[in-house]
Amino acid sequence: MGTSPIWGSRPKTRGLVLDVIRAVRASSRVELAAATGLTGATISEVVRELMADGLVIEAGRGGPTGGKPRTLVQLNPQARYSVGVQFERNTCVIVVVDLAGRQVARTSFRGLVKPPEQALALVASQVEALLATAGVDRDKVLGVGLVGYGPQDRRTGSLLTPQPTDEWLGYPVAPRLAEDLRLPVLLDNDAAAAAIGEYWLGAVDARSTYACIYMATGIGGGVVVAGQVYRGSSSNSVEIGHISVDIDGDECSCGNAGCLENYAGPSAVVRQALAMPGLAQRLALDPAGDDFLMEFARIAAAANAGDGEARGLVERSARYLGCAAVTLAGLFDVDTIVLAGPSFAVAGSIYQAVIQREVDRRTFARRAHPVRVVPSVNGADAAAIGGAALVLQSELVLGPPEESLRPALS
Amino acid sequence: MGTSPIWGSRPKTRGLVLDVIRAVRASSRVELAAATGLTGATISEVVRELMADGLVIEAGRGGPTGGKPRTLVQLNPQARYSVGVQFERNTCVIVVVDLAGRQVARTSFRGLVKPPEQALALVASQVEALLATAGVDRDKVLGVGLVGYGPQDRRTGSLLTPQPTDEWLGYPVAPRLAEDLRLPVLLDNDAAAAAIGEYWLGAVDARSTYACIYMATGIGGGVVVAGQVYRGSSSNSVEIGHISVDIDGDECSCGNAGCLENYAGPSAVVRQALAMPGLAQRLALDPAGDDFLMEFARIAAAANAGDGEARGLVERSARYLGCAAVTLAGLFDVDTIVLAGPSFAVAGSIYQAVIQREVDRRTFARRAHPVRVVPSVNGADAAAIGGAALVLQSELVLGPPEESLRPALS
Repeated sequence: MGTSPIWGSRPKTRGLVLDVIRAVRASSRVELAAATGLTGATISEVVRELMADGLVIEAGRGGPTGGKPRTLVQLNPQARYSVGVQFERNTCVIVVVDLAGRQVARTSFRGLVKPPEQALALVASQVEALLATAGVDRDKVLGVGLVGYGPQDRRTGSLLTPQPTDEWLGYPVAPRLAEDLRLPVLLDNDAAAAAIGEYWLGAVDARSTYACIYMATGIGGGVVVAGQVYRGSSSNSVEIGHISVDIDGDECSCGNAGCLENYAGPSAVVRQALAMPGLAQRLALDPAGDDFLMEFARIAAAANAGDGEARGLVERSARYLGCAAVTLAGLFDVDTIVLAGPSFAVAGSIYQAVIQREVDRRTFARRAHPVRVVPSVNGADAAAIGGAALVLQSELVLGPPEESLRPALS
Repeated sequence: MGTSPIWGSRPKTRGLVLDVIRAVRASSRVELAAATGLTGATISEVVRELMADGLVIEAGRGGPTGGKPRTLVQLNPQARYSVGVQFERNTCVIVVVDLAGRQVARTSFRGLVKPPEQALALVASQVEALLATAGVDRDKVLGVGLVGYGPQDRRTGSLLTPQPTDEWLGYPVAPRLAEDLRLPVLLDNDAAAAAIGEYWLGAVDARSTYACIYMATGIGGGVVVAGQVYRGSSSNSVEIGHISVDIDGDECSCGNAGCLENYAGPSAVVRQALAMPGLAQRLALDPAGDDFLMEFARIAAAANAGDGEARGLVERSARYLGCAAVTLAGLFDVDTIVLAGPSFAVAGSIYQAVIQREVDRRTFARRAHPVRVVPSVNGADAAAIGGAALVLQSELVLGPPEESLRPALS
């Protein structure tokens, strides 16, 4: 797909127009010209091309603007699909989304803690099965967004961390999955993906600079500036889970000391709860449980239900996240912070309230503008849906990706 | 100057070509075409225009590339000048730089702690005097870059903090200085300015994503991505001095708790030194001194000279800055961290060594690429020189600034 016909003769203009149609949902050609700064003739030609490819359809008429009524165009959600695959420590979520970024099928399974070739073969078979179940035509699938924790080497499509097992360090996960599936595969960060998912779904203003805090087993971050992921030197940016909140804190496996994740993350909350005998017994927490996200969900549910000790622990976690949110706001000068991922699913409203309070009180530039803290529109599956949205954006809006960022199909 | 003739008919192309000439110092037309992707004909035309304006001059011949020898062109440093004005708590540094970003004149004075109209009148008279002393033709001065601490409102050219006195909060400092001087005045952050100064002087690779930690009385930060300042929502980004390094630390005047500045900054080091009777006496530190930067410089000099206690304090400060540098590296994924400003002037090599060590050990993505810690090429005056460089970049490379970011001359 390196020279996909989808780009037509002028990829940038096409991408621009398509992105405006996506953002405003239904638009007349006159409005498109105004929004893009392109001439009416160019808009007409590009819209004709997009309609010929089936990406855009006519959608009734808007009100007259003095002269004849305007024909509206909108995305054709069924024209293309993409797949999002999210790796967690031991679990995998796969979603299929349509062109509008809406989820049309989902599956999840455990069992990634094995050598990468075996795990990836399992993922490939699950993707095939999900596409078949959803009845999605393979020809309409643009690609796969494979997302997970960092650090990563996006150019080679490999992980720069020995997780979940040592064999994964440096293993070319994206090219290998691409080979198995015969589809383009992008590797990206889960939190960056979650951040772009918000944008593709139209949940944030297109000109916004915003951050996403993504909490699953770990804590990650993503920043989006005017619709594009902030990348930095090597796409290993916004690792908010591994900033130090205590310079004299315990060493983390990442090399740093006092990392946020070890104070605010689900495993920290579970550890703190297990040290409180009354709470641990009340919630029947299992010190030997192999899935601390389930134990964490129980604590979060108890916090919601008014258990004082559980609520204290969740609020403590939220306060640390609030501290990190203030750091994100102070460094990236964001106008919005989105909370995404499975670990905000149960006690999200407690987290949102505490983090908003901390940000309101402590952000340096609060005289310049407020910073809103909001839950993700994609909730617990934000990373997987975002991974699929990254493919849509990459293939349809940003222009043909640099070859170096797309593992070649062999 | 809103419609300055300097832009010619195609501002973007002109800015692009000029920036390549600046970066490579001397370049043939063939090399310019290769570096910019523009045609030889366009390059010839743009170079002709730039030469007609005096911005570019011929500079001998390069080696032949098969055919005839190539005529080289380079910036004409004396073609234009700009002024950088740096506000500190009580002091002001003013520099005049040439088109190459080199300082041609400098002055500094105290006495800013007064109502803004009086302080700005003083600044204006000092700028006039400096230009006269330097013998710089007013017609060749592109403008003034006024830089200082944040938060700021760049659109209105005003400060969003009641410093140095309450009357400064919201006062339109940039338009007022522009009126006094009859020159365009940009207001910007001191650390962002220091960061761009490195770029304009050619000290960093043009494609680099790098950060600057700027330490004067306070601590600020700036990030540059491919030659442009990272701005965020309101240009109040990278406020590294006000990230929390201790969630339970003392309240800071900014609203946050445990701010880096209160642990690592010069006033913190002086406070710690005054609490050590032996050291305070040995260095004749003045607890009632009104300029703690002088006391801090004495401690830094003693650290360099091998005083164990002084060195311990400087290393402690450096360790906190190292922690912040790891946060910067982890969030912005930078390849270089530049140390700039007067408070690195004396013990810069201690700071550089400690911060480099912390970054090497603790950065999450160290498998992706190293992060270099380097001193600023502009040293103690980095912010003032950078302020002038921001004007050069804004006027010559980035295209005519948005009117809203340039206070209109009345």
